[in-house]
Amino acid sequence: MKSISTIGSHSSLQILHGAKMEGFNTIVITDRKREGFYKQFNFIDTVLSFDKIDEAVDLINRNEESVLVPHGSLVEYLGQERVNKITTKIFGNRNIFEWEGNQHKKMFLLKTSDIKIPETFERPEDVDRLVIVKLPGAKGGRGYFLARDKVEARKGIDELINKKEINSEEDVIIQEYVVGVPMYFQFFYSPLLDRTEIFGIDIRYETNVDGLRRLPSSYGSLEPTFVVVGNIPAVARESLLPTALEYANNFVKNVRERVSPGMIGPFCLESVVTDKGEIVVFEFSGRIVAGTNLYTNGSPYSWLYWNEPMSMGRRIARELKNAVINNKLNMVLT
Amino acid sequence: MKSISTIGSHSSLQILHGAKMEGFNTIVITDRKREGFYKQFNFIDTVLSFDKIDEAVDLINRNEESVLVPHGSLVEYLGQERVNKITTKIFGNRNIFEWEGNQHKKMFLLKTSDIKIPETFERPEDVDRLVIVKLPGAKGGRGYFLARDKVEARKGIDELINKKEINSEEDVIIQEYVVGVPMYFQFFYSPLLDRTEIFGIDIRYETNVDGLRRLPSSYGSLEPTFVVVGNIPAVARESLLPTALEYANNFVKNVRERVSPGMIGPFCLESVVTDKGEIVVFEFSGRIVAGTNLYTNGSPYSWLYWNEPMSMGRRIARELKNAVINNKLNMVLT
Amino acid sequence: MKSISTIGSHSSLQILHGAKMEGFNTIVITDRKREGFYKQFNFIDTVLSFDKIDEAVDLINRNEESVLVPHGSLVEYLGQERVNKITTKIFGNRNIFEWEGNQHKKMFLLKTSDIKIPETFERPEDVDRLVIVKLPGAKGGRGYFLARDKVEARKGIDELINKKEINSEEDVIIQEYVVGVPMYFQFFYSPLLDRTEIFGIDIRYETNVDGLRRLPSSYGSLEPTFVVVGNIPAVARESLLPTALEYANNFVKNVRERVSPGMIGPFCLESVVTDKGEIVVFEFSGRIVAGTNLYTNGSPYSWLYWNEPMSMGRRIARELKNAVINNKLNMVLT
Repeated sequence: MKSISTIGSHSSLQILHGAKMEGFNTIVITDRKREGFYKQFNFIDTVLSFDKIDEAVDLINRNEESVLVPHGSLVEYLGQERVNKITTKIFGNRNIFEWEGNQHKKMFLLKTSDIKIPETFERPEDVDRLVIVKLPGAKGGRGYFLARDKVEARKGIDELINKKEINSEEDVIIQEYVVGVPMYFQFFYSPLLDRTEIFGIDIRYETNVDGLRRLPSSYGSLEPTFVVVGNIPAVARESLLPTALEYANNFVKNVRERVSPGMIGPFCLESVVTDKGEIVVFEFSGRIVAGTNLYTNGSPYSWLYWNEPMSMGRRIARELKNAVINNKLNMVLT
Repeated sequence: MKSISTIGSHSSLQILHGAKMEGFNTIVITDRKREGFYKQFNFIDTVLSFDKIDEAVDLINRNEESVLVPHGSLVEYLGQERVNKITTKIFGNRNIFEWEGNQHKKMFLLKTSDIKIPETFERPEDVDRLVIVKLPGAKGGRGYFLARDKVEARKGIDELINKKEINSEEDVIIQEYVVGVPMYFQFFYSPLLDRTEIFGIDIRYETNVDGLRRLPSSYGSLEPTFVVVGNIPAVARESLLPTALEYANNFVKNVRERVSPGMIGPFCLESVVTDKGEIVVFEFSGRIVAGTNLYTNGSPYSWLYWNEPMSMGRRIARELKNAVINNKLNMVLT
Repeated sequence: MKSISTIGSHSSLQILHGAKMEGFNTIVITDRKREGFYKQFNFIDTVLSFDKIDEAVDLINRNEESVLVPHGSLVEYLGQERVNKITTKIFGNRNIFEWEGNQHKKMFLLKTSDIKIPETFERPEDVDRLVIVKLPGAKGGRGYFLARDKVEARKGIDELINKKEINSEEDVIIQEYVVGVPMYFQFFYSPLLDRTEIFGIDIRYETNVDGLRRLPSSYGSLEPTFVVVGNIPAVARESLLPTALEYANNFVKNVRERVSPGMIGPFCLESVVTDKGEIVVFEFSGRIVAGTNLYTNGSPYSWLYWNEPMSMGRRIARELKNAVINNKLNMVLT
């Protein structure tokens, strides 16, 4: 195992930068349109470009000696079917993608981890408070909508079906809308050290909702949209961290039981913190999240563990390097 | 003096991490529930746990050779009475806690420092504009409320008395509500160097007010709450810094005269910046603030002074180390 | 060429800190009121103070062996006329100041760079949607106003003329108000490497608009103001970066043709990102922006290029150092 590859998008810059810092060869597989962009970075050894998305899997599989690091764009970009054809080894648990892509399985995994989650409503007819209706997968918030009651919930879902955004109401998840502030807790579980590290925290920067504050209310009432276009760094009150870490450890334990071979590497508990100081987790990501792009040189928390610059990308490569050295690659690949 | 101790909360991670970087032994005194959390960090040498809060002071005092670093949770968590029983030496001026805990003394100290502060109203009956009514101590904003006139001010205060949040109207402070943006200026005063350093700036991240923007106005009008659950980094226009530093130096000079033996180490001027470019200080903290947790590896300003990673926690330990070397511990302990 | 000088304001701390790190002598030219402030930083070798603004140019020109680094406060503070009298060499293209100061020429330069910009309306009478009316120069947003239609646009412009903020309607620019989130993309173009580097991203922190969220709507409807008093860090979705860099490269190419001798060093594309994922550039800065003050120790992006702490100030000094070594100073000075 001599090189690390990833798809050119999402968090590929820090993944490959970190890989290079740990001594690996680096490969980016990218849409040809972005070839020039990735070629300018000297920590990327090889840029493999495709014209059609179908060629991407071939380009990935061509690198037998390399390990693919998956990220949020992988499934979203290639689609689950193409991902299933990847024969290259993956850093992380490839079986968790399916759980992440299905809102119902996702919430089940959180719930059975003894993590506080929002109330979920099976059917629009059960709605008895303000809810948010979510689409499957990591679409960056596109299509999500709020509904005040069962009528609005039903109407919104029917519209999604009409627009062919979803096939049926089973595809969405209807969640209590928890009032509070978003806080996304990033973690890294190291199978080699059997340790869950708090990596960092981010807040999503969403268009147009984060811009609307600039418009006086007298200038019309635009409907907010929630498309994630960036991230802003944050730290949490220290007294929140023990709970966050407890949730993370519970999650790791539960994934070990339900999604063989268990959690490997980065994950994220997307949360709302209420004014009662409760952390309510409304989603998880079973792989690196883009919010870690903030911390190319380490985060307020990673410095506590490492005392050297440690991005999430580098942390992945460090785990791989240690696995190679200790002949335990099987513990981190699937 | 060989070790540094602190209560496990608020900013204890950076305090002990910094202490370790400067070569001290490190001790955390913590609620047993958080024992597991603090044990995972290898820069913490000793974890002392208590089951009842009354045991905390004993655990602190047991470490005769150590210096206790106080933070915002110390008084709030132990209570002033228990704090008075601490016989261990404290880094900083322990006499300032009482000034910080009393809103009237607090504003008096700012005012006599030639710092621009909001108009204060002695009694609710004097209110003639939008005001904010604040409770004593560092409760993270709980119980604070806005009032548009004397009637609302009176009503809100009476409610606090009824709910036994306060004993009488003397416990609160009624301040003009200054319209502008919050900016918290963190400083470190070094008695050894007789120098005030601008350490960093943060913005508080408050639930639920910072989340409400996500809710379209048509979804009901929730009352905002202002519970601090985290912090976001920021820098100020450079042209604001000379004024901020002048205020800080004025404050240091004034504390030297009024609160013996004067300012030692970290403090913060909690401010609002108006659209006239004025810095209006509405509060101070006479010890490390949680906003410095953002800067485990140094802040945009600390790099200018140090050219090495310098958290506020490490800055404290550096001052202690220099005091030990120069046989001037008495200048930084009380 | 042995020293680097700049006016004491805006981003002078990082400029001189970076200069010192690259081995240059450093000179700050400052209003005497700020003399004490700048004297406390040990990376500033010489503090030259003036009592009247007219003396500033003399102080600049006195340093024949030094290079002046211009920033946003230079033109705004000295005025174009005084700037024209500067005989000291400038790092960067001094001819671009005039383009930056004229809203019409500014937008022309962006438009001819194949960059997506907001619709512009020649005269208030042409307005057919929500617009923002902007004043010339880098006034930090003062005087800007929104108008819903041609009547409001005309009225606001007439008021500015009455208040003598502008001479005629030709001084302002009337732009479509693009709904989305602000994102300011900072770049560095290196003539020596012929390379455009993505340096970082910031969001402006504006008073009072960023504070109004703290006021419940029932407490009256204050008109928002947009005075920039600081900056907040951010990263963008990685998939936005190729477009941002393409825009930057287009801009560099266009400036080379239209504003001899072309782009040199730092610039910024002030943008709004819409919920369609489009980057719309509504302004540019042809020199260092204050948002780079966030990144004294490097930004999430600069670490990818440099693997060492690289502020924008240090990047400038690095380019100067390399120019000296390679005897190519003429490529970076005007």
